[in-house]
Amino acid sequence: MKNINIGILGCGTVGTGVAKILIENRELISSRVGALLTLKHVADLDIETDRGVAFDKGVLITDAYKVVDDPEIDIVVEMIGGEGIAKDLILRAIDNGKQVVTANKALIASHGNSLIKAADEKKVDVAFEASVGGCIPIIKSLRESLVGNHIQSMTGILNGTCNYILSKITDVGTTFEKALVEAQANGFAEADPTLDVEGFDTAHKLAILGALAYGMEINLKDIYVEGISGIAPMDIEFAGQFGYRIKLLAISKNTGDAVEARVHPTMIPFDNLLSNVNGSLNAITISGDSVGDILLYGHGAGMMPTASAVVSDVVDLARNLLSGIKQRIPVLSYQREKIRRIPVLPIDDIFTQYYFRFSVADRPGILSKISGVLGSHGISIKSVHQKGRKSEGSVPIVMLTHLAKEADVKKALLEISSREVVNDRPVIIRIEDKDEQEKS
Amino acid sequence: MKNINIGILGCGTVGTGVAKILIENRELISSRVGALLTLKHVADLDIETDRGVAFDKGVLITDAYKVVDDPEIDIVVEMIGGEGIAKDLILRAIDNGKQVVTANKALIASHGNSLIKAADEKKVDVAFEASVGGCIPIIKSLRESLVGNHIQSMTGILNGTCNYILSKITDVGTTFEKALVEAQANGFAEADPTLDVEGFDTAHKLAILGALAYGMEINLKDIYVEGISGIAPMDIEFAGQFGYRIKLLAISKNTGDAVEARVHPTMIPFDNLLSNVNGSLNAITISGDSVGDILLYGHGAGMMPTASAVVSDVVDLARNLLSGIKQRIPVLSYQREKIRRIPVLPIDDIFTQYYFRFSVADRPGILSKISGVLGSHGISIKSVHQKGRKSEGSVPIVMLTHLAKEADVKKALLEISSREVVNDRPVIIRIEDKDEQEKS
Repeated sequence: MKNINIGILGCGTVGTGVAKILIENRELISSRVGALLTLKHVADLDIETDRGVAFDKGVLITDAYKVVDDPEIDIVVEMIGGEGIAKDLILRAIDNGKQVVTANKALIASHGNSLIKAADEKKVDVAFEASVGGCIPIIKSLRESLVGNHIQSMTGILNGTCNYILSKITDVGTTFEKALVEAQANGFAEADPTLDVEGFDTAHKLAILGALAYGMEINLKDIYVEGISGIAPMDIEFAGQFGYRIKLLAISKNTGDAVEARVHPTMIPFDNLLSNVNGSLNAITISGDSVGDILLYGHGAGMMPTASAVVSDVVDLARNLLSGIKQRIPVLSYQREKIRRIPVLPIDDIFTQYYFRFSVADRPGILSKISGVLGSHGISIKSVHQKGRKSEGSVPIVMLTHLAKEADVKKALLEISSREVVNDRPVIIRIEDKDEQEKS
Repeated sequence: MKNINIGILGCGTVGTGVAKILIENRELISSRVGALLTLKHVADLDIETDRGVAFDKGVLITDAYKVVDDPEIDIVVEMIGGEGIAKDLILRAIDNGKQVVTANKALIASHGNSLIKAADEKKVDVAFEASVGGCIPIIKSLRESLVGNHIQSMTGILNGTCNYILSKITDVGTTFEKALVEAQANGFAEADPTLDVEGFDTAHKLAILGALAYGMEINLKDIYVEGISGIAPMDIEFAGQFGYRIKLLAISKNTGDAVEARVHPTMIPFDNLLSNVNGSLNAITISGDSVGDILLYGHGAGMMPTASAVVSDVVDLARNLLSGIKQRIPVLSYQREKIRRIPVLPIDDIFTQYYFRFSVADRPGILSKISGVLGSHGISIKSVHQKGRKSEGSVPIVMLTHLAKEADVKKALLEISSREVVNDRPVIIRIEDKDEQEKS
């Protein structure tokens, strides 16, 4: 039976999971692939800790470069993370003609274009299914299952930490701060949660998906990013009264000459399946011109689910090697010469619906002033809710708008603030409601 | 630029959709594949009707054998359906060394083993993504994305007609008969709906999935099948009171030495995402030892969504041809020599939860008699509901059980019926409630 040798760089959580699957499900994988996948080396600075995996003697080594330089290793699996040593090692593996698998979204989002160019020059594959949505086969779906479709939009819950926190606030009515502490205690959030809760991790993933879907270069820097740290329990409660839940969404729309690409807390109706995706789970809806809407759902993080996606990449590349081929599918889904620079629409130019919460003094005439300013900027109000609780001399006025342009909204809110009819900076949350968008 | 020639057999709804995508999205597909996919011939007895597709002159022909025998055609797409001429044409295409794509679930479920054997002997591919779940990438997920997983179970809504009808009864409280007529009027049900509403279509799909997931031969005949024609609005209403919705589910579980494979109306809790899959949509949950649960959702039928899946197969096989390879992945997901005969557990041997509705005379002592018989067969009652409406001298008693063995349930209900404490045959609906199953 043929044999493919695998080397793993980094034996943290996911690296350990990949080793576990390759060792424990070796026979199963071989019965599907028709060859043996052998874990030749796992490189980690710590080779002492017992990871609960039965490594053969000599498999664990400390020198990662020995893995990427080993002429017997066919596929290198980078599980170190970050943009430093991981990038060097991947470039060296590519240079050595290895097939490469990684789950490193930050690296792909920030340096993917140059890495993939290097891979194209060496005619090797770089696979990164686990970089977006953990175990969810989103990258394979975009590159293969939806290959006959113009992708029109993608809407995803792509960060388990944020979804866990928002679900907690929704279910228990706790604050963001308390939910974050609980998420950290339960292993759903890092000690430094910034990358997750401020939306940057989601933006990394959206940058990758946009490239695969639309045939553009990976473009992280133009994505609009807003996190969930400003979400108050009160806004989640009001959302519920309007039939909405708040999720941190990655939203991308192909408008033809440009794409929208934005990450922000978003209200979505109860009957949108995404609103029922709770806890640390991830899900994404993709719309294509033939397929309509499909939704893919599963664990977006965690040792074994993420490892499952990494192993699917390893097997994909092993199957290529066993057939004597490489780059059966272009890494970024489109032929290199077809990849274009498609501009990302500035956030000011998007049209969407809005939720506003104004904190106002409880006296007459305020509502009329606010709605007057909104109207003068062409912003049409869909509903108003004013019977909120009084707190520190203020009452909340909550409004939902019809579709409006972000730039107009900003101008209107600035004017409202400057007229001193409101006590605090207004809260703005964007709404995605297909029914409303189809009407307009 | 390289060229791959495609021939389509049958230009009905889906065949037309495939032609439409190949013609209208030709440039898009070529920018992804790096080659031209050319629709050389479409064979149909009717070449006069305008299908709204701009066929080149001479593409439409009446002789399907001319397509499968054309040495210039690389990939044959069978869109005729049924088990007669479609089978002959596929066998001849295989014999001529063509790559074959089909969406014909009845054919694959009934004759797949011999067709695939023929393909293996000729070392060609037979692809059938569109045979299960329409556009949903379920077959690719089983063969590729979940390749590192022991698949533990699959639970799916795989028939849009049944789901449309059940959704209608749930939403409007109408009867099965009226909902069926409406489904037919709206194009969601065939004139003869038997194959759909009696569960056979779902069973075809489950037979295919079981083979791909567990490494067994396709086994249609051992699947337990029960349709939805006996579902009364009253049962849907009671289900709702217990926090359940009724769906026609394909259920498959891998118990190690045997598999469960059954199709029947099933109560599932509101918080199961499948219970929120409404109308003609399909969805499937797959559990694997690494991945946990994933769910895939989309249009299970219809011209363009199904065509989208067919085109994904065409491109997959085209990519193989362009790389000079065939059978990169074994057709049934496992290497031929690893495919086993795994027995399907008889329905009498399964353990699940049950909903019973008894129609009884409104007099004392009946409930105690029924529960006595159930208890004597080891069936433990979880909850009882007795305040139903009286109709024609009868009142309904509704019960939910804990996990029980189907054989015991049958014996108990037979005994209850024979004691003449009930006026009608009891209604039985199985329940899938993970929380309950995990407790036991």
